[in-house]
Amino acid sequence: MKKNKVAIVGTGMVGMSYAYSMLNQGTCEELVLIDLNKKKAEGEAIDLNHGLSFAPRKMKITAGEYSDCSDAYIVCITAGATQVEGETRLDLLHKNTKIMKSIINEIKKSGFSGILLVATNPVDIMTYVCWKLSGYEKSKVIGSGTTLDSARLRYTLGERLDVNPKDINSYVMGEHGDSQFVAWSYALSGVQPIYQIASRNNSKIDFDDLEQIEDEVRNIAYKIIECKKSTYYGIGMALTKITTAILENENSVLTVSSYLNGEYNQNDVYIAVPSIVNKDGVREVIHLALENTEKTKLNNSIRIMKENINKLDI
Amino acid sequence: MKKNKVAIVGTGMVGMSYAYSMLNQGTCEELVLIDLNKKKAEGEAIDLNHGLSFAPRKMKITAGEYSDCSDAYIVCITAGATQVEGETRLDLLHKNTKIMKSIINEIKKSGFSGILLVATNPVDIMTYVCWKLSGYEKSKVIGSGTTLDSARLRYTLGERLDVNPKDINSYVMGEHGDSQFVAWSYALSGVQPIYQIASRNNSKIDFDDLEQIEDEVRNIAYKIIECKKSTYYGIGMALTKITTAILENENSVLTVSSYLNGEYNQNDVYIAVPSIVNKDGVREVIHLALENTEKTKLNNSIRIMKENINKLDI
Amino acid sequence: MKKNKVAIVGTGMVGMSYAYSMLNQGTCEELVLIDLNKKKAEGEAIDLNHGLSFAPRKMKITAGEYSDCSDAYIVCITAGATQVEGETRLDLLHKNTKIMKSIINEIKKSGFSGILLVATNPVDIMTYVCWKLSGYEKSKVIGSGTTLDSARLRYTLGERLDVNPKDINSYVMGEHGDSQFVAWSYALSGVQPIYQIASRNNSKIDFDDLEQIEDEVRNIAYKIIECKKSTYYGIGMALTKITTAILENENSVLTVSSYLNGEYNQNDVYIAVPSIVNKDGVREVIHLALENTEKTKLNNSIRIMKENINKLDI
Amino acid sequence: MKKNKVAIVGTGMVGMSYAYSMLNQGTCEELVLIDLNKKKAEGEAIDLNHGLSFAPRKMKITAGEYSDCSDAYIVCITAGATQVEGETRLDLLHKNTKIMKSIINEIKKSGFSGILLVATNPVDIMTYVCWKLSGYEKSKVIGSGTTLDSARLRYTLGERLDVNPKDINSYVMGEHGDSQFVAWSYALSGVQPIYQIASRNNSKIDFDDLEQIEDEVRNIAYKIIECKKSTYYGIGMALTKITTAILENENSVLTVSSYLNGEYNQNDVYIAVPSIVNKDGVREVIHLALENTEKTKLNNSIRIMKENINKLDI
Repeated sequence: MKKNKVAIVGTGMVGMSYAYSMLNQGTCEELVLIDLNKKKAEGEAIDLNHGLSFAPRKMKITAGEYSDCSDAYIVCITAGATQVEGETRLDLLHKNTKIMKSIINEIKKSGFSGILLVATNPVDIMTYVCWKLSGYEKSKVIGSGTTLDSARLRYTLGERLDVNPKDINSYVMGEHGDSQFVAWSYALSGVQPIYQIASRNNSKIDFDDLEQIEDEVRNIAYKIIECKKSTYYGIGMALTKITTAILENENSVLTVSSYLNGEYNQNDVYIAVPSIVNKDGVREVIHLALENTEKTKLNNSIRIMKENINKLDI
Repeated sequence: MKKNKVAIVGTGMVGMSYAYSMLNQGTCEELVLIDLNKKKAEGEAIDLNHGLSFAPRKMKITAGEYSDCSDAYIVCITAGATQVEGETRLDLLHKNTKIMKSIINEIKKSGFSGILLVATNPVDIMTYVCWKLSGYEKSKVIGSGTTLDSARLRYTLGERLDVNPKDINSYVMGEHGDSQFVAWSYALSGVQPIYQIASRNNSKIDFDDLEQIEDEVRNIAYKIIECKKSTYYGIGMALTKITTAILENENSVLTVSSYLNGEYNQNDVYIAVPSIVNKDGVREVIHLALENTEKTKLNNSIRIMKENINKLDI
Repeated sequence: MKKNKVAIVGTGMVGMSYAYSMLNQGTCEELVLIDLNKKKAEGEAIDLNHGLSFAPRKMKITAGEYSDCSDAYIVCITAGATQVEGETRLDLLHKNTKIMKSIINEIKKSGFSGILLVATNPVDIMTYVCWKLSGYEKSKVIGSGTTLDSARLRYTLGERLDVNPKDINSYVMGEHGDSQFVAWSYALSGVQPIYQIASRNNSKIDFDDLEQIEDEVRNIAYKIIECKKSTYYGIGMALTKITTAILENENSVLTVSSYLNGEYNQNDVYIAVPSIVNKDGVREVIHLALENTEKTKLNNSIRIMKENINKLDI
Repeated sequence: MKKNKVAIVGTGMVGMSYAYSMLNQGTCEELVLIDLNKKKAEGEAIDLNHGLSFAPRKMKITAGEYSDCSDAYIVCITAGATQVEGETRLDLLHKNTKIMKSIINEIKKSGFSGILLVATNPVDIMTYVCWKLSGYEKSKVIGSGTTLDSARLRYTLGERLDVNPKDINSYVMGEHGDSQFVAWSYALSGVQPIYQIASRNNSKIDFDDLEQIEDEVRNIAYKIIECKKSTYYGIGMALTKITTAILENENSVLTVSSYLNGEYNQNDVYIAVPSIVNKDGVREVIHLALENTEKTKLNNSIRIMKENINKLDI
């Protein structure tokens, strides 16, 4: 297994924004682009290679086959039908399950034994599907989850509080979709609880604002889709961050879609919860002591995931 | 004038690949996206902002108006009709001249007084058009020229010689288009002339290879367009490199499209020649003592530019 | 005022580790080294300049005079006698006050109007001294405070909990010295309170560990001094971080030494408390609702600072 | 063998400047500091670790034993007596040969099988000594050579010509010491021969300047030593560059000290010549067709090396 090799399945805008972000940040040493449309993958590899003279780090970028997954450290699945205007993330379910079946089948044939990172929507369910179909270890199959939504939350809170988004420590949990929620009882600006800030007089933010921000974060994807048909730059950089956490063995806390095995009194489901990510994938699911209303929201989100999973033929 | 503010006119794939590259590399501090389709620009700004938590450097990214150019250090024009399969770069000429007129008009109204970077194709002619229409200083209007083609050459030679593309010192000169050529008499791997390498027995490369490589570089855009409709990642990173050279006052040598004022015994034309780029734009055009065949190619390329310019109503 | 110009007063190991860190990280565009020993500053500037070919960003590095502070955005004072084995940070007090007088005098004469960053120990008191002597705005005089101690805490907790230090959100507050303390009631791993983690059975860490870690962080400088005479690499990178927060207008939360003006019911003192740092210096002191024992420790630390300040002739 | 593990033997200023540069640039993932004075190495490791919260990349930094070299990809030897004022680099010869014997002995016992990078002066001879004593492959024992001198040349020419040092393609060859010389016949600014530039009227540089620059580069170390006792920042970053070329398999052209095996009609000597450096060490020595006067200088330099080597008991 090559420690710095990443393979991307699917060269649509999400896969390519991820690839281009890694090229510009120097995230890995070897990158393979895989697509049913081999010609598309070839064109993309050439276009990226022409940027190498301007990149911070040398990379080997090629268009490849599933067999190239054999020695990759990470395979990231971005292929699948994408969310279009008016469609919910769950609508994509059946279309994409079928696609995952053929992809997982090919990846398994390659002998791949690294970390499987799933970005296809609805991502929590697709991660479950990929885990189930692959038979890989639970901790080595990860979904992008609400990593992006948490970044959206941090950006929005950062703007409102005039604080560096990197110092906003707040997570969106649950489904990467309509049933997601903000774990406000654990949301901090620096180390200062947002609740404390919101309860002060003359604060830059109040409780009504929090509700509005939560809605905004939940629905912002719809707004972007309305403006530019689909979203890809934010998720591209979120995938780069997850990749760095894995390749550099960072033990970083990220709200990836993780398998619950008793945490939050739930199991047999993938859902976004804060998790410690390192070279082994999800090293640990962080079990936060949520407030009752938050617990209800998480359970509701998980219930929706499970209902959908039960409808699937996997 | 804000020293680290960049405005991009046009949020098509070229403009956005440039913007996304700058976000991932931390190239500037403030970025404004301008598009006739204001909603598109807004969606793009939001999508980029969501990546901020994962970016190396803080940036302020907004969708704006032409009036936001007033205090920008660089305005980069990427708007315009794009090259489609089967079309030459020169075919775009008339369509894009008209577009430049309205853009330059708006930029001038803003009071902009920085560096104008033109990426719209056919880029050498469009740079001339923008200079003429704007009345700005010659050295402060720059085209992306063959910066990308030179990167393609360096990548291709690097692959063949198994040398870091950053250590391949070779330039494509002339039109960013079919009449471009490689200045082989000044092409080096490290400090070693490629001609010396090609003339040795058992070398990794011979003179036939050089010709083939020159053809490949000239035509690779057509191949990418065939594969993925248009090219944007390579040019995006090339624009980022030019931007860095300007903002950081690097005095870097780049084959941007520069105004000739006696150099190469030519004048009143913009064409790609090695130029020293810094905070003032093109500080100096490097006048290489080309071989006769190379001179002929450059003159030919310039003749084509001038013939086209003469057809324009500017 | 040049937006990316930094001047360092004092080219001892702290000043130079800061300079070398900025060269390697590409933190600023222009760097001036100032030292009574002009020859030393010249040698250091030459040595740094030889690394430019290998640096991520172009920089202009020179040995200069106090007059070069006139257009700097940041002047960082690192000059002063250094802490030696067996000596407390407070022992340095009188020696360094005298040195500050002559430095501030020279800086003022230059017409400098940017951010004054003080690193000379005892840093909280020296920052007060520099503020008092300079007459500059309170928010534009900043001490390095416990930025380094907080980094030491984050590193130590990160090692114990096996979590990325960047995801440990915990601060050391009070004097950069023996009376410092950890604000445990606001210490988090990710968003999870360290107290919650420590109170669980079979946790990687318990309450005894916390006490031991607090002692270790407080005393680690003595250990380093015992091993290698003085500490400079950690503080060099802490200064680089503060510099980035200022130059990039980051609004980052850092435990710099800030002037208290009613916060924590204290005033007329500089002490390390979490503060939001941006282009204007300390934009806001964060007033955490500390536990009683923590309040006592902060007040005690402030009392020591004030007692010492009162002994000074400023 | 761990692909991103570096061990440094010797924690003097050169070794530590190299280590600190790698920490600030994020060059490797694992770093071991080895010193006879174990306590010194421990203090240095702690000081570096405290900077981790501010570093671009996670690193594991420890003080270790020679046995930790077993799985390192690179071991860099910086230990040895250092050049003091009035002393030539060759004076150090006998002192350091003895030190190398004990170091190589220990490294071999560890079972190390990676790239041995030698920085101890006189570096060309010490590299030969280390190769001879170790019995390792010629291409896997490398000296820092004139990598730093070439950087000094590029910086000095860049200043004079007002061109980015990264675009100055010029090498210092021969001994890292008094018999070194500039290969002017292959010196370029961008792709333009320096000779061409110097021969023009009204050029920024003439032939007398070239001679003076060559002298300045040769003697600048003496000047720095006069100012600040020893040089370490430049060489620290040069070592980081060589390390990156190896770890990232860059195939970069660097004037490291390489074993000649027929190139330049010489053999059985280590001397600085442009070489292609990648994961295998020196992949290829570049044989430039030097001018006669340059050939004489190279042969003279090699003769000096051999005379000294012959005096050694290895």
